[in-house]
Amino acid sequence: MAPSTPRVVVKVDLKKKPWEQDEPLHNRWHPEIQPVAEVKAGEFFRVEMVDWTGGAIKDDDSAEDIKNLDLSTVHYLSGPIKVVDEEGVAAKPGDLLAVEICNLGPLPGDEWGFTASFDRENGGGFLTDHFPCATKAIWYFEGIYAYSPQIPGVRFPGLTHPGIIGTAPSKELLRIWNERERQLEESGLSTVTLCEVVHQRPLANLPIAKGCLLGKMEEGTPEWERIAKEAARTIPGRENGGNCDIKNLSRGSKIYLPVFVEGANLSTGDMHFSQGDGEISFCGAIEMSGFLELKCEIIRNGMKEYLTPMGPTPLHVNPIFEIGPVEPRFSEWLVFEGISVDEAGRQHYLDATVAYKRAVLNAIDYLFKFGYSKEQVYLLLSCCPCEGRISGIVDSPNAVATLAIPTSIFDQDIRPKTRKVPAAGPRIVKKPDVMKCTYDGKLATTKNPSSSSFI
Amino acid sequence: MAPSTPRVVVKVDLKKKPWEQDEPLHNRWHPEIQPVAEVKAGEFFRVEMVDWTGGAIKDDDSAEDIKNLDLSTVHYLSGPIKVVDEEGVAAKPGDLLAVEICNLGPLPGDEWGFTASFDRENGGGFLTDHFPCATKAIWYFEGIYAYSPQIPGVRFPGLTHPGIIGTAPSKELLRIWNERERQLEESGLSTVTLCEVVHQRPLANLPIAKGCLLGKMEEGTPEWERIAKEAARTIPGRENGGNCDIKNLSRGSKIYLPVFVEGANLSTGDMHFSQGDGEISFCGAIEMSGFLELKCEIIRNGMKEYLTPMGPTPLHVNPIFEIGPVEPRFSEWLVFEGISVDEAGRQHYLDATVAYKRAVLNAIDYLFKFGYSKEQVYLLLSCCPCEGRISGIVDSPNAVATLAIPTSIFDQDIRPKTRKVPAAGPRIVKKPDVMKCTYDGKLATTKNPSSSSFI
Amino acid sequence: MAPSTPRVVVKVDLKKKPWEQDEPLHNRWHPEIQPVAEVKAGEFFRVEMVDWTGGAIKDDDSAEDIKNLDLSTVHYLSGPIKVVDEEGVAAKPGDLLAVEICNLGPLPGDEWGFTASFDRENGGGFLTDHFPCATKAIWYFEGIYAYSPQIPGVRFPGLTHPGIIGTAPSKELLRIWNERERQLEESGLSTVTLCEVVHQRPLANLPIAKGCLLGKMEEGTPEWERIAKEAARTIPGRENGGNCDIKNLSRGSKIYLPVFVEGANLSTGDMHFSQGDGEISFCGAIEMSGFLELKCEIIRNGMKEYLTPMGPTPLHVNPIFEIGPVEPRFSEWLVFEGISVDEAGRQHYLDATVAYKRAVLNAIDYLFKFGYSKEQVYLLLSCCPCEGRISGIVDSPNAVATLAIPTSIFDQDIRPKTRKVPAAGPRIVKKPDVMKCTYDGKLATTKNPSSSSFI
Amino acid sequence: MAPSTPRVVVKVDLKKKPWEQDEPLHNRWHPEIQPVAEVKAGEFFRVEMVDWTGGAIKDDDSAEDIKNLDLSTVHYLSGPIKVVDEEGVAAKPGDLLAVEICNLGPLPGDEWGFTASFDRENGGGFLTDHFPCATKAIWYFEGIYAYSPQIPGVRFPGLTHPGIIGTAPSKELLRIWNERERQLEESGLSTVTLCEVVHQRPLANLPIAKGCLLGKMEEGTPEWERIAKEAARTIPGRENGGNCDIKNLSRGSKIYLPVFVEGANLSTGDMHFSQGDGEISFCGAIEMSGFLELKCEIIRNGMKEYLTPMGPTPLHVNPIFEIGPVEPRFSEWLVFEGISVDEAGRQHYLDATVAYKRAVLNAIDYLFKFGYSKEQVYLLLSCCPCEGRISGIVDSPNAVATLAIPTSIFDQDIRPKTRKVPAAGPRIVKKPDVMKCTYDGKLATTKNPSSSSFI
Repeated sequence: MAPSTPRVVVKVDLKKKPWEQDEPLHNRWHPEIQPVAEVKAGEFFRVEMVDWTGGAIKDDDSAEDIKNLDLSTVHYLSGPIKVVDEEGVAAKPGDLLAVEICNLGPLPGDEWGFTASFDRENGGGFLTDHFPCATKAIWYFEGIYAYSPQIPGVRFPGLTHPGIIGTAPSKELLRIWNERERQLEESGLSTVTLCEVVHQRPLANLPIAKGCLLGKMEEGTPEWERIAKEAARTIPGRENGGNCDIKNLSRGSKIYLPVFVEGANLSTGDMHFSQGDGEISFCGAIEMSGFLELKCEIIRNGMKEYLTPMGPTPLHVNPIFEIGPVEPRFSEWLVFEGISVDEAGRQHYLDATVAYKRAVLNAIDYLFKFGYSKEQVYLLLSCCPCEGRISGIVDSPNAVATLAIPTSIFDQDIRPKTRKVPAAGPRIVKKPDVMKCTYDGKLATTKNPSSSSFI
Repeated sequence: MAPSTPRVVVKVDLKKKPWEQDEPLHNRWHPEIQPVAEVKAGEFFRVEMVDWTGGAIKDDDSAEDIKNLDLSTVHYLSGPIKVVDEEGVAAKPGDLLAVEICNLGPLPGDEWGFTASFDRENGGGFLTDHFPCATKAIWYFEGIYAYSPQIPGVRFPGLTHPGIIGTAPSKELLRIWNERERQLEESGLSTVTLCEVVHQRPLANLPIAKGCLLGKMEEGTPEWERIAKEAARTIPGRENGGNCDIKNLSRGSKIYLPVFVEGANLSTGDMHFSQGDGEISFCGAIEMSGFLELKCEIIRNGMKEYLTPMGPTPLHVNPIFEIGPVEPRFSEWLVFEGISVDEAGRQHYLDATVAYKRAVLNAIDYLFKFGYSKEQVYLLLSCCPCEGRISGIVDSPNAVATLAIPTSIFDQDIRPKTRKVPAAGPRIVKKPDVMKCTYDGKLATTKNPSSSSFI
Repeated sequence: MAPSTPRVVVKVDLKKKPWEQDEPLHNRWHPEIQPVAEVKAGEFFRVEMVDWTGGAIKDDDSAEDIKNLDLSTVHYLSGPIKVVDEEGVAAKPGDLLAVEICNLGPLPGDEWGFTASFDRENGGGFLTDHFPCATKAIWYFEGIYAYSPQIPGVRFPGLTHPGIIGTAPSKELLRIWNERERQLEESGLSTVTLCEVVHQRPLANLPIAKGCLLGKMEEGTPEWERIAKEAARTIPGRENGGNCDIKNLSRGSKIYLPVFVEGANLSTGDMHFSQGDGEISFCGAIEMSGFLELKCEIIRNGMKEYLTPMGPTPLHVNPIFEIGPVEPRFSEWLVFEGISVDEAGRQHYLDATVAYKRAVLNAIDYLFKFGYSKEQVYLLLSCCPCEGRISGIVDSPNAVATLAIPTSIFDQDIRPKTRKVPAAGPRIVKKPDVMKCTYDGKLATTKNPSSSSFI
Repeated sequence: MAPSTPRVVVKVDLKKKPWEQDEPLHNRWHPEIQPVAEVKAGEFFRVEMVDWTGGAIKDDDSAEDIKNLDLSTVHYLSGPIKVVDEEGVAAKPGDLLAVEICNLGPLPGDEWGFTASFDRENGGGFLTDHFPCATKAIWYFEGIYAYSPQIPGVRFPGLTHPGIIGTAPSKELLRIWNERERQLEESGLSTVTLCEVVHQRPLANLPIAKGCLLGKMEEGTPEWERIAKEAARTIPGRENGGNCDIKNLSRGSKIYLPVFVEGANLSTGDMHFSQGDGEISFCGAIEMSGFLELKCEIIRNGMKEYLTPMGPTPLHVNPIFEIGPVEPRFSEWLVFEGISVDEAGRQHYLDATVAYKRAVLNAIDYLFKFGYSKEQVYLLLSCCPCEGRISGIVDSPNAVATLAIPTSIFDQDIRPKTRKVPAAGPRIVKKPDVMKCTYDGKLATTKNPSSSSFI
């Protein structure tokens, strides 16, 4: 018998709710969430995952489920998985856990995904001030390719990856997270050192018992109550990896994760069929259920050997990655540039976030001229294999960010034509469009004084 | 005779000073700087350029020239070049100028360059709070490859490009620039909406008559005085392109620049043999003299056809690019991650600049363990073909930025080893090192509390 | 429900023999083999396949099964599949069938394969005069990667593809095949216009009733007897595609096959996890069972529209392909050259086959010096993603062929070292080695007079 | 002064004839041709070259110069260059010479080239039986790109390389060459072991005093007479490298050449701006004058260390190569297949040359349908960056060869359309066409019985 059929260490049943799974899932980071499986270094194993919302978003014709999603419940993760060496000795704090992604993909029978933008009052996104409404597009997969009935005219190969992969934090690291994020949240907008044009709410996502799922731990017990109050939310990427949303963590890549607790306690989830750099619409990848086939190695004492803490404690480290050899290959790119001047014309100082926002806005308005709605492009740039670069970060006062889009994903030539100006006049937005809800909130939206005439 | 030998429209003599050249150079942006040459659409032509400092930095064994560089004199540009169509009619405001870079390289006989970090009080750089001293490394070119006696153990092919390429601003655009940058400078640090850990001084670089070179215009005349006071500095990239420092603008790329004045008035300079995304040390590319071989096309009315203004006026646009087909090809990358938590452990909000700073710091400390000095790595990551990505920009409160380094530029395997821990103990920093000056200023530097033991 | 889960149109059960499958397989080309399934143009469907020997080769520790394989039984194919358009009208002779490979891979639970060289008297191979013994290596898959216990020190990502994909021949085309191949076989070696150093036996593989499997058709019936006698063997690639063994027909590729019979009658099989150009050892790919996920389009009248016959009839055409976007990416290659001079030093005339043989022999002897046995390298170069090129075909009398090997598949640096000569002296061949049988035949083998001292 | 400006060791003056150059050229291989320059290991140096015909082919509007070219004069090479180590000790027989191509390109002021097919009676080419006439196309260079007025609608980046790079043969090796090639020539067509459909005349190119140029050696002296009679022609690639016409020997590649004489005596020439695999029309690259910038290392005793002779003597070896990192990047390829069945429908046995011929013929007839003349495509496929592969070489009786063409070099989409059949009816061949002479000979040409209706 071939030894290379991976052992399935976490299996999910998509007909069940996240809290009904045989190996219970979890949606928080905490050292006391108990492992559901154990793997040996060098072993080839498989982990299955529900989509990040645990099935809350449907393949239907409405974005209401997006508008009303309870974000306290995300992301549903598979694991933790305890890792031991060939002799059965567990990974130890201070080790590095090398995780190789040997293969991954959607779950058979569930080959679809969704890309969405949240309502400005419930989640928001990078351009939520421009696009305050909840929107949704469904993607179907044909092997390596994805296409969407709501965004016709594009089809592209996926650079599939887990949005979240990470080890469990130690108590001390958890305390650091909660403290620094609480400080940010509590001090409020007044002290946020980032241009207000990229503000969203909330500033941080602090621990909350509501919606909490802690693996095998039974809800309502005193222990559950204690942990639910201190367990970290899964939204941001942190020292343990977590929701880093790095699109290149695909087949063949290797991830070096710091180990903070005995056994490493690896968890993963939030599978993306494809994502653009930045995952701009927040629910911006092609979100799906899926599987990972993995191999782990333990590098004993690897944190000290390879990582230098950057901060007040030895825990202030970040993971390292190697990129795999089978990424989709594109040779022609159209690139949009942004500088750190905001939509009101105000000059910001070396602000790469503002510069990238402007590059994305430029790309949306450009592609709009080729017959897409702006909402279609917003979702498309969230999930297609586009690259977001920090091109210049020292030429005061302007940071320069660029967004590169592979031209071959379109069924038309989107490059400017030097020889013949395309037909002028108002263009017809292609039907159908993305599904869209009303925005019923009262937060201000950003108007681009110059672009209104084009809509 | 072959028609494809490019016509040399700007020639430079490296034995002469910038202000002594036959076709006088300029180091400011202003609509009234007179063209030094005219080209037809479709014509294949060549432009030569001095290095951005006009020869102020020498191939010698000291970084004093860097420490004392007069930044009011940079960047020395070639041009402006007036562009007309096949019938001789000049490009007009509202057109797009498509500039194809057919070829480029160092000037024959001058095949060397420099990478440097400025003193914290004279220019600074992305990590100037960590590296306040002026440093310098010299690079020699062997065809497509560069190597430095000061940074042994690395050699890489260049992705050569002009740091600056742009059209002249109109009076109105110039006014917008000066106003918004003055506002930033005058309101001071108190209102800067960016994390203070990336602050440098000055916040902006406002017009200054000192050091000003305006082409054929004679210094000291009333006209010169007037223009020198209002001409924009060349440090930041802006609506006209300019110092965008996008490393992919290499052979075969195509740049679509908005036209703001009659004739477009294309200028270019600041040739880089190679640069990493971000050009982090500010004088961070391999800076050199060089040449460009170009072809221009005029897309009549192209600004309206293809660009959507983003801001209060129709002038608030940004250029578009296509990437060329002959970039150096790497297949293995080691990737460092940063999140928007600063060196003091403080949480920042979706700040891609802070996240990228942390990714770079992580990479420097990692490579330091392989025998390089931190200053060597700081300069190396400024100029080698590394890629800086905005990976996640929506997972509050952490932006995730990544820095990907091609492993084949090193003569050792820099990947973490899963099987065998490398020899422990203090490592010997390789000699020689970069040239380095003292820092005599009093600005605070950033200490990483955790990394001190390694130095 | 997602519409993009592919419909399984041919399912195989690996516990059953090829002739026991529910949808019966076939191992000959003939227009009268009946379709086992029907698909619509645009439909996304899945085909499963046994390995080319139908399970005759085992994951065990002997090459006896290779030595004794009954080659009259290969290749076991899945299909034929009838293709109709959206209105249900079948593909017609003269159409082109565009087949997109959306996905493919090994069958779950059967993630292994084998590479082998046949005995010189039973199948042979490109270098059978040098390697007359049957040998075998087993490969296990870890997601995208394959490794072999018999060839330690290498691991590589697969460029997985079907060795065979083709449409059914018409009676007329079948007659042409049989006639021209019989002519070759019957006229014998004396008239073969190829250098004798690449001769194998038999020259062709003519129809033979023994071992014949014809789908649903019952063995022993008069109809079966008739068809078995005239059905073409599947060994060579021909006008219908068939066993073209083109390693780049992987994920995302598109194959344009001529249609010769009503319904096109598409068949496929001989899945390869990976193969080098040439598939030199004959059983040279990593042979496995597997699945394909496909989409077909019918280009009506496409043969006339796009293909020009090259030969006496309109049926003398060849397929066209487009390569997919997700091939493994290598950037460093070591290249071996061969010219059309044979091992005896004899000059041949522009013979690309001899030149390629020499390039392969050079590569084998080179890698032998790095500690591999020659048999290990022979099998490795058959199945790893190496590229075989016809570099020069006009410089009389030497054809120049090249074999490019990606260096990153080895765990050692196999490039020549310019600075330090590696340790001299006899090298130890790594253990274990490939499984190997004795050669009991009496055919002459080729001795390289110069290489003997190295063994 | 920068040490990296390469020292020019061979300079050519394009206004002079090959025999008038200051450093005299040579067009034969012989150990007694004296070095014209000496370089040290590690030194960075530059060699300039005339085109392979020494200026005999003009940028004019006729192919008469091609038709009448005196092939006894080609190829004009620069060198020999003697290589010594850092201590001044010359390379010795048995060493390997590692030559790194740091840079290369056309000579400034001479940025053009030509691609041609010879008359069937004077040189011929791979398809000379189909295309017996001399034809010519001129290419102009715009930096990395080439375009031809005679083949409108295509433009591509060059993968520039020297067609010839090699070391001098020893007397013994020269004797081996002359003997084996004479044997082939003398035994005549009757014993040629290659399909007659690829026969050309002559079978080999034996030494001939006519047209001979031997460096500094004065013509007419007894020594000259002796050497001219035995010096090998430069047409074929051989053990010393020579005219291997490998298109990937471009920037950054490294060539390991065996050393047969004291000092290695490196010669190079036959610069190609671009070439397709096979260089099918014989004068098939974009032929030009040019320069190489090189670095050499001597690997002492490297022939024994790394190469295994394949033949009766230790001299029967072949060079090894590493491919450089900056080749043009294409991601979409259309691939044509050929099998070893000739135009008359005759079956050949595993003949890769015949299979490749058929693949090329298929590609020509396919592209002809898109509006090119067949002669245009013949020249285009000779010189554009297309890839010729030996895909299958074991599936008796058919070898399978493939020709992959990057689709982005065309200004139209050349892929088959699955949705809409393009307009039927006779197509208009684009004007202008390649320059073409009459064929006045009497050799039979090959008619494809099926393709005549298309012309």
